[in-house]
Amino acid sequence: MTINTKNSAVENEGQTNDVLPVTHELVTEIIHALENQDKTQIEFLLEPLHSADVADIFEQLNEFDRRLLTNFIGVNMEPDVLSELDDSTLGHVIDEMDDKDIAHVISKMEIDDAVHVLQDLEDEDQQKIINELPADGRLAVEEGLSFPEDSAGRLLQRNLVSVPGDWSVGKVIDYFRTDDDLPDEFYEVFIVDPMHHPLGTVALNKIIRTNRDVLISDIMDSDPKVVPVELDQEEVAYLFKQYDLTSMGVVDNSGRLIGMITVDDVVDVIDEEAEEDLLRMAGVHDSDITESVFEASKHRVIWLLINLVTAILASGVIALFDASIEQMVALAILMPIVASMGGNAGTQTMTVTVRALATHDLTPSNTKRIIFREFFIAALNGAVIAIVIGGLSWFWFSNMALGGVMAAAMMINIVMAGLSGILIPIILDKINIDPALASSIFVTTITDVVGFFAFLGLAAIVLL
Amino acid sequence: MTINTKNSAVENEGQTNDVLPVTHELVTEIIHALENQDKTQIEFLLEPLHSADVADIFEQLNEFDRRLLTNFIGVNMEPDVLSELDDSTLGHVIDEMDDKDIAHVISKMEIDDAVHVLQDLEDEDQQKIINELPADGRLAVEEGLSFPEDSAGRLLQRNLVSVPGDWSVGKVIDYFRTDDDLPDEFYEVFIVDPMHHPLGTVALNKIIRTNRDVLISDIMDSDPKVVPVELDQEEVAYLFKQYDLTSMGVVDNSGRLIGMITVDDVVDVIDEEAEEDLLRMAGVHDSDITESVFEASKHRVIWLLINLVTAILASGVIALFDASIEQMVALAILMPIVASMGGNAGTQTMTVTVRALATHDLTPSNTKRIIFREFFIAALNGAVIAIVIGGLSWFWFSNMALGGVMAAAMMINIVMAGLSGILIPIILDKINIDPALASSIFVTTITDVVGFFAFLGLAAIVLL
Repeated sequence: MTINTKNSAVENEGQTNDVLPVTHELVTEIIHALENQDKTQIEFLLEPLHSADVADIFEQLNEFDRRLLTNFIGVNMEPDVLSELDDSTLGHVIDEMDDKDIAHVISKMEIDDAVHVLQDLEDEDQQKIINELPADGRLAVEEGLSFPEDSAGRLLQRNLVSVPGDWSVGKVIDYFRTDDDLPDEFYEVFIVDPMHHPLGTVALNKIIRTNRDVLISDIMDSDPKVVPVELDQEEVAYLFKQYDLTSMGVVDNSGRLIGMITVDDVVDVIDEEAEEDLLRMAGVHDSDITESVFEASKHRVIWLLINLVTAILASGVIALFDASIEQMVALAILMPIVASMGGNAGTQTMTVTVRALATHDLTPSNTKRIIFREFFIAALNGAVIAIVIGGLSWFWFSNMALGGVMAAAMMINIVMAGLSGILIPIILDKINIDPALASSIFVTTITDVVGFFAFLGLAAIVLL
Repeated sequence: MTINTKNSAVENEGQTNDVLPVTHELVTEIIHALENQDKTQIEFLLEPLHSADVADIFEQLNEFDRRLLTNFIGVNMEPDVLSELDDSTLGHVIDEMDDKDIAHVISKMEIDDAVHVLQDLEDEDQQKIINELPADGRLAVEEGLSFPEDSAGRLLQRNLVSVPGDWSVGKVIDYFRTDDDLPDEFYEVFIVDPMHHPLGTVALNKIIRTNRDVLISDIMDSDPKVVPVELDQEEVAYLFKQYDLTSMGVVDNSGRLIGMITVDDVVDVIDEEAEEDLLRMAGVHDSDITESVFEASKHRVIWLLINLVTAILASGVIALFDASIEQMVALAILMPIVASMGGNAGTQTMTVTVRALATHDLTPSNTKRIIFREFFIAALNGAVIAIVIGGLSWFWFSNMALGGVMAAAMMINIVMAGLSGILIPIILDKINIDPALASSIFVTTITDVVGFFAFLGLAAIVLL
């Protein structure tokens, strides 16, 4: 399939997903066919699609149509469709299917995919389905689920290709030609000792371009990247990015090779982790995008209530100065500007810091330098904004002293915002709290409280 | 190398990068050796490192030490070190190197890496280096740079493996064993017709496991994913994610295969695009993390000045009600709460929307449904927050009417925040403006202006 892209802006309609087979027209046709119970048409429409595209269609449908489609496909569900679904849609589809049917579909999956599908289900549902699995699959799945959440073990594919170092390239190729139990996809061969400790790896293209009589150990990369099974998936993803890997061996506590992780799963991890940081910084639950109204509302309102406490705290600061505001209403007019600009400056620094921590760009080697950098940026930007808003306030209220108070308060608040934007995420990271999740609430509290206090406090001293 | 992870929380110190060879100790030793001009020690420390790790060390050093290291390595710079550097560090390193030396290093790179390094340089520097390249490399690099920025063409690796469909598997393997000009890394073979149109692909593992006498066209995937050279890199990344690809062919306007894109470059694209969205939503320049104080300050202050206009606009709304505030100072105390909660609720919805647009989860097929979803979430959360803050305000100021006004204003503002949080990114996307870049300024303006107007306006009518 050559994927066509329409170049004309008119045809394009601002939607970039017309390079993909799942168009609005296709989804509309499928909904129409579903609601008319036109089985032939549904089969005709779904048949040419890749499993990932069928999964996308499930995600696009509303709950009613999704239920129709689930019942229509039933036990004939492609395993890859289930493993490509997002968590909420997967939950809906699995709720609608018979446990025996799900177990049948899952038993056809690779272990890493089966674990991926099962790990997000409620414990009870999970156990019911596991009980329906055939014995050997059940053991492997249970072992996969026994590894810590978000660890290398959860991404593990047990089936890999390993050979002893004294085999020739020819013997390796002959083994490939005769063995039926190879993984569907693999990119390298692991060389192991008799205890199954990894000695090296050879990329397939190197095997193919080498003569049959060469020893496999003579062409292996003898410094292969291998990770322990409990390593966090974020670190696994980092290693794939850092070393441009396509697959990587995983070892158990005694250093024995027990499986591999392939780049397709890592691509998903990279995407998930970036999404998690983005959503968490905005106070949104990781799976918000596909949650129902009530689930999403419940998760988001907690964040709003926490922020309400912050906002009330800031109001408490304003209340301290109610007499000043009564004397000079201009203070009430200008004070939100100080808090709002501090908030924006703090968010800038905090976002850069959270990202730099996630990408290992902020390390013990450069922390001090980067704190100074943020201080200087804040001081520079504070000065610029202070001069602009000081001048404008002076002009607006024909009151030079008010302009001076505004400028000073703005300078203080933007510098405090910069410092809290860099220090709070670093401190949270040190004490093992996710900085993406918790930084903004502290930074906002500081910029609001400091902003109102500096402005109203200075005003009370200087102006009244 | 088995990558060890320390499990003890004490040893760990909250830093996760101790799984990597570039530790704080190593960087400190290198700085020490650099400042003592101890060449033997520097060589000893750098020698065992992967190019990506050497690049990390450059990024960790301050400008002075970075200059020392650049001069120390000079023309012996590994090509991969340059291609792994982030944009700002790359700029510093290239400024410090001799043009001839850089051209020498770049001439040893794959074309996609050379284009990646050159594309971010200033035009003048770029041209000087290109002029120093050997003739054949120069042409290929200039062609690479002629493709639109962030398009598939910029990720293109010209060197791929293509064979005619009538070759046997044995002939393909023999060709691999004798041809010296194969790419360093490849995962599949392209089958082409005499005009070099792609007919299919075969994964290497499939070639290895098939007998020599089978025709290559009999085992090929005859529906290979192929993209046009101008396709946006975000779409390329989407296709890799969607179809779990490791490499993909790229065709020119007449459908001829002109190169391939490999998953290692796509992993970087996915990471960059996620970073871009995260930073842009906070009003930070894409390369902020590695910019100098002045560059970063300049980029960030523009955002602050735009936000200042918004904040002044909101103050203008407050100024309309100065008489009301003079009569009842409680209004000044409570009004920031309405604006701040609206801002938080708007950011939640906006972030979810921007992300859903980026991941193709928000499409014409479900836009209407998701707008309603956001409206209902906003209405629910608005009601919860309105009741809480209405009650608190009543209690705080012993004024039931004030509590009622606060609750009503909060409800109005949170619903408006939800609607603008979903509609603004969708509209911006439709008119081809990056929603990550521009949404927040509109959403903030709306939540501030609506918040103050609703609260103070209702208060003026009901309370005074």
